[in-house]
Amino acid sequence: MIADTPTPPYFAVIFTSKRSDVDNGYKEISNRMLELASKEDGFLGVESVREEYGITVSYWKDLESINNWKNDLEHKAAQARGRKEWYLEFKVRITKVERDHQFTK
Amino acid sequence: MIADTPTPPYFAVIFTSKRSDVDNGYKEISNRMLELASKEDGFLGVESVREEYGITVSYWKDLESINNWKNDLEHKAAQARGRKEWYLEFKVRITKVERDHQFTK
Repeated sequence: MIADTPTPPYFAVIFTSKRSDVDNGYKEISNRMLELASKEDGFLGVESVREEYGITVSYWKDLESINNWKNDLEHKAAQARGRKEWYLEFKVRITKVERDHQFTK
Repeated sequence: MIADTPTPPYFAVIFTSKRSDVDNGYKEISNRMLELASKEDGFLGVESVREEYGITVSYWKDLESINNWKNDLEHKAAQARGRKEWYLEFKVRITKVERDHQFTK
């Protein structure tokens, strides 16, 4: 579940959110979005953890691929439902990964 | 718990980790590190969610403040224990936040 990203530079979208108590297919749509995103050109991986708050970080080759994903029609429909039903608040940060290091036992 | 960060640019450190099953004071040291980090010059906020995997994103004014925090002596001691006891694997990514947007109901 730690994304196997390439040598920097690449891009990361940090999505921090607080869920409402509305279900209405949230989990299915959420999984469908991960599946769709992973087919996008330029997608490099994703990491996601959720309690009441959730942090999902998706990794991308460039800003163009982030923009394409943002504007995907099925994704836009899910975003609209997210605002209306699933999230009380969220914040999206578009970042450029400048360096990284990792540790494995 | 969504960090109230300023207008970009600023920096984000994404720490993704997988915990071992060793406790040994993990929670206390983890809280102590959040307390210490928040006193560092240039600290802007932190978001953290944990299941088996955890994602902690800390926000910083510049690379210098990230570097100062990395080299804090008490933090370095905790890092060493993290490698030895608390984490099976982790990845750290240093990123520059280029833009953000948020939604609140």
